Amino acid sequence: MPLTPTLTQKLLAELLGTCALLCAVIGSGIMAERLCGGNTGLALLANTLATVFTLYVLIETLGPISGAHFNPLVTLLMWSKGTLAPVSTARTAMFFIVAQLMGAVLGAFLANAMFDLTVLQISHKLRGGWLASGQFGGWGQWLAEAVATAGLLFVILRAPAGKASGLVACYIGAAYWFTASTSFANPAAVFGRMFSDSFAGIAPASAPGFVLAQAVGALAGSWLARCLETPTQQHA
Amino acid sequence: MPLTPTLTQKLLAELLGTCALLCAVIGSGIMAERLCGGNTGLALLANTLATVFTLYVLIETLGPISGAHFNPLVTLLMWSKGTLAPVSTARTAMFFIVAQLMGAVLGAFLANAMFDLTVLQISHKLRGGWLASGQFGGWGQWLAEAVATAGLLFVILRAPAGKASGLVACYIGAAYWFTASTSFANPAAVFGRMFSDSFAGIAPASAPGFVLAQAVGALAGSWLARCLETPTQQHA
Amino acid sequence: MPLTPTLTQKLLAELLGTCALLCAVIGSGIMAERLCGGNTGLALLANTLATVFTLYVLIETLGPISGAHFNPLVTLLMWSKGTLAPVSTARTAMFFIVAQLMGAVLGAFLANAMFDLTVLQISHKLRGGWLASGQFGGWGQWLAEAVATAGLLFVILRAPAGKASGLVACYIGAAYWFTASTSFANPAAVFGRMFSDSFAGIAPASAPGFVLAQAVGALAGSWLARCLETPTQQHA
Amino acid sequence: MPLTPTLTQKLLAELLGTCALLCAVIGSGIMAERLCGGNTGLALLANTLATVFTLYVLIETLGPISGAHFNPLVTLLMWSKGTLAPVSTARTAMFFIVAQLMGAVLGAFLANAMFDLTVLQISHKLRGGWLASGQFGGWGQWLAEAVATAGLLFVILRAPAGKASGLVACYIGAAYWFTASTSFANPAAVFGRMFSDSFAGIAPASAPGFVLAQAVGALAGSWLARCLETPTQQHA
Repeated sequence: MPLTPTLTQKLLAELLGTCALLCAVIGSGIMAERLCGGNTGLALLANTLATVFTLYVLIETLGPISGAHFNPLVTLLMWSKGTLAPVSTARTAMFFIVAQLMGAVLGAFLANAMFDLTVLQISHKLRGGWLASGQFGGWGQWLAEAVATAGLLFVILRAPAGKASGLVACYIGAAYWFTASTSFANPAAVFGRMFSDSFAGIAPASAPGFVLAQAVGALAGSWLARCLETPTQQHA
Repeated sequence: MPLTPTLTQKLLAELLGTCALLCAVIGSGIMAERLCGGNTGLALLANTLATVFTLYVLIETLGPISGAHFNPLVTLLMWSKGTLAPVSTARTAMFFIVAQLMGAVLGAFLANAMFDLTVLQISHKLRGGWLASGQFGGWGQWLAEAVATAGLLFVILRAPAGKASGLVACYIGAAYWFTASTSFANPAAVFGRMFSDSFAGIAPASAPGFVLAQAVGALAGSWLARCLETPTQQHA
Repeated sequence: MPLTPTLTQKLLAELLGTCALLCAVIGSGIMAERLCGGNTGLALLANTLATVFTLYVLIETLGPISGAHFNPLVTLLMWSKGTLAPVSTARTAMFFIVAQLMGAVLGAFLANAMFDLTVLQISHKLRGGWLASGQFGGWGQWLAEAVATAGLLFVILRAPAGKASGLVACYIGAAYWFTASTSFANPAAVFGRMFSDSFAGIAPASAPGFVLAQAVGALAGSWLARCLETPTQQHA
Repeated sequence: MPLTPTLTQKLLAELLGTCALLCAVIGSGIMAERLCGGNTGLALLANTLATVFTLYVLIETLGPISGAHFNPLVTLLMWSKGTLAPVSTARTAMFFIVAQLMGAVLGAFLANAMFDLTVLQISHKLRGGWLASGQFGGWGQWLAEAVATAGLLFVILRAPAGKASGLVACYIGAAYWFTASTSFANPAAVFGRMFSDSFAGIAPASAPGFVLAQAVGALAGSWLARCLETPTQQHA
């Protein structure tokens, strides 16, 4: 048994963490919908707190194993920076992403099961662009996802050592409210939320738009972080 | 007088801490029920914040004395890992659990007294399985308790040194919302809440199902944590 | 000019801190009452957050000057433990208490002025014992104040080094909800709140009962903390 | 490329940070207004949390570059204390302020765009003095802005090393509730909020009164902090 985590342990950590994250996001969304009686503002407030607490706990407890990505775009960023395992990193990145997507679906299933709902369900909530209307519609949703993901990547790249857990949690807590899309900012989250026909869900037809916007945002966020880099930070 | 806490001091810490925890959980539940006028979502939000703050404070102030278990399943876990006192640890574990159960009941009594309610009262709120119907019924409640307790034990076993207080508090804060049962995750909490016919109570008939589910969850949580162990962590 | 704060600076810190604390407690109470339209649960939630944030900030910024007591019972406790200035400490304690009471009244005046209310006003809200009825009445209110103050002194005495600010803030945040009296736990707070005829006020006739209950609680809290002391902690 | 951030990087950090701050304040205000259905108390609670989280994240991630002022009065304070760059500091201060004002407007534009609103809009919400009536009117609004800014500068000047991010965030979170004006406390925030005809906006006619009150408060806050200085702190 090695002194550092094995690849299997890393993949288990990514699967478990993404499962717990989606279970928390969707589960607290269902609970909030049930208890808040149509008061969507209150429901999002509860959903926000549950998500912030969960992210902090998951990054602290699983970060030392896998880096606590729980997000394909974060894995791709780390891969591009060469901070994944020393050999066959493209393969490792691919494995990470598969574990995240599997974990996300399992998290949705688990939330559905705990709340005595059909385990396999598909969201009908259209979000973004010309597909949706009303509160969740409009081009602003896509801009919001790009902004949300740019901010997330920027925070990850600029977090001082040992503070990423609290900073990422707080950032997402804020972005739930200041972005028009309630900040998915994560293709694995989009994937998992497709399997919940609730407050927190997203219809499969709306997924590609969200993921594309997130990818553009991820590039913008990394570029902005690079603009602020100084040599000391590069070597730290 | 010894340099380390005596067994009596440890038992007092467990009794006092579990008393304060249950008093806070039940007391804030009664307050929330009174002030929130049927808005259950808002009441659970207030209940959540009070519980998170209380857990953080109790673990910080009593942890150095007794380890701040306040939970028979945590005591059994620590006993199984050999982290209780060097001699007659089975007896120590048993004493810890008795102190926790006594503290839990005293906490319920104290909350009832502060709110001018009958001090000795029994909950009529059925929760879980075939016994209950509606929001608090269904098999999902038992799954939820297993998930909640698995997560709690996992967090305790994987918390980096010095961060357990914040992590346990945040975890429970999230689990209040993402588990369908509002996350008791503690047989002593089940025991104490039986003595409160309020928002936070649980009928004695529903207690065995909850405790059994918690025990199963505790095993699952410890097993998952062991899967992620590396030799460095085992010797740390 | 000395290397440690002068007595004048300490008294200014106590006056300023107690003023800011009461201004925050009363001001956020008035704001919450105005914005929450009769939803008392939501108003107390906002009042709680504002108080928690304020306490953390005041203890961090003024603690290095005066110890950040802002509470006559805390000053008396520190005086009894010999942790006030080396000479004429009874006089120092008395000066501290006068500064706290003056600060508390100034804080109430400042809150009233900011919200365009009559600067000098007296609360009509009876709380506790045979004087009051309904939600704020009953003997439980006095028990609640004793419990709240016992907990506060216990937390102060057992807070690990450097963590008092967060622990006191979180404790009071929890106690706002789990005690039936919303946890004044401070004779200076009682004094200042007499000058606000709002959500957060207390009628002068109810003040003596509250202060007496707090004094009893303070003794109980210090006694409990002493029961858990070990020689190592005494010399730390 | 230098080992410390270049002036361009500092200005980019100020522009980006003030943009993100205003985007978060205004964006979460719009979101809260939409979701909370006229419940202004709940809307301000959500707005508060989003602002607190945002401030903490921005000060942690951008502080090492520019000091994370995001506020002309903070820049002027730092300039007066000689803590800006060694040469031509008056010019640097002016550049900082221009970057902040530009960032603030861009933040308002970005929030408007994300929520599918007209990008360029002007607030009609009169606040303070004889211009406004009702909840947002009265002389107390100006007193409130002076108090809010005095507190902010006091907190910045007295924050222990490494704790400014959390303390400033918590202070503003409290001040949103305990000051009658919801605590703008920042001329750049006033400038940016003029471009949002929403919950969080301020009409241009009300801006001069707010900024003047803030300037007076800034002087009072720095003076109070100086009264508590000891030689040890001056050289730290």
